[in-house]
Amino acid sequence: MELFFSPLACSMAARIAFAEASAEVKLIEVDPRTKRVLATGETYLAIHPLGLVPALRTDDGAVLTENASILQFIADEFPAARLAPSESDRIGRAKLRQWLSFVGTELHKGLMIPLLGRDTPPEVKAWVLSKYASRVAYLDESLAGREFLLDRFSVADAYLFTVLNWTQATPEIDLAVYPNVKAYLERMRQRPGVADSLALEVPLFRAEIARRKAA
Amino acid sequence: MELFFSPLACSMAARIAFAEASAEVKLIEVDPRTKRVLATGETYLAIHPLGLVPALRTDDGAVLTENASILQFIADEFPAARLAPSESDRIGRAKLRQWLSFVGTELHKGLMIPLLGRDTPPEVKAWVLSKYASRVAYLDESLAGREFLLDRFSVADAYLFTVLNWTQATPEIDLAVYPNVKAYLERMRQRPGVADSLALEVPLFRAEIARRKAA
Repeated sequence: MELFFSPLACSMAARIAFAEASAEVKLIEVDPRTKRVLATGETYLAIHPLGLVPALRTDDGAVLTENASILQFIADEFPAARLAPSESDRIGRAKLRQWLSFVGTELHKGLMIPLLGRDTPPEVKAWVLSKYASRVAYLDESLAGREFLLDRFSVADAYLFTVLNWTQATPEIDLAVYPNVKAYLERMRQRPGVADSLALEVPLFRAEIARRKAA
Repeated sequence: MELFFSPLACSMAARIAFAEASAEVKLIEVDPRTKRVLATGETYLAIHPLGLVPALRTDDGAVLTENASILQFIADEFPAARLAPSESDRIGRAKLRQWLSFVGTELHKGLMIPLLGRDTPPEVKAWVLSKYASRVAYLDESLAGREFLLDRFSVADAYLFTVLNWTQATPEIDLAVYPNVKAYLERMRQRPGVADSLALEVPLFRAEIARRKAA
């Protein structure tokens, strides 16, 4: 399989999932500004017309997009890693999808994307915070007394960590106000699958920033 | 099962799914302004602390939230209705989740929620349109020559129809520019499961507006 990614973007969730499964994947870096494959210069829009990462190309050539779909696909490909509740655990599966959807809609798309945008007007950031800060409080309550979103590490944690990691770049969200979220983030950072993924992507992200400044 | 809903809100997707499956469900209306169950006055925040519909309470008392999760749960509860590709069709399942995620993140949360808000500042609407109008164009291309998102009607269509139905209230999105989306919306409106759901919810929506004006 091939995973199209950009450093520290939401595609890192899929990289973490592969790392947690000790599974091999070919990583193909996409420059998020030019929407081109970094190594070859080929346009990424041929893979995904919206230019959004991640995309996963299976060995059969099928292209999947959207984190919630890709992450469940990886979990199902490598069941021994137990990155999702088993198929027979209907409520467990539903809770996994609930968290994947919450992270994708409320945190990633609702809250973080506008805050992270370099071109986002201050009025937009203020409106977003008025609407979505409650979601971080809800997450904080949900994580009270829990190590993971579900009973054990799952692909929903891979996604949540990836999105929460962006709070380093959003001073508007003060994690000191959300102690369970803060502790969760620090705990996740210690996991080998997460730590290894960060160690690989942080230098690539710095190189991306350097390219952008040079352009 | 019990479905907590508000008229014409995104919870209508779950109502459509139950209708398409000819399955029984107890519908419990929530006033989206007061966050109370309309019939009893009980607070809905006891069911979902964020006050968002839909929520599905199973016969075992489990409460599920988030459309993407609830819709797949309904599809799996009533397999004879074929509202999702079979479990053995891994790519089909992944494509279903891809569309559920796209509708939830890009269209519902990214584009429509800010445009629908009565309190959304014009600067926010302008920013949202600059970012997300491309998603409607992408959807339009994806629907070219297709009757449904997948090869047959699925819960992803129930969700997509519900979200596209809101374009009646968003003059910023001119469906004449997106002929495949427009035709899809008109086609879906003719389906009995969709038409029946609309016929039930439109009068409830009007009553909700009347209550709001009277308050």
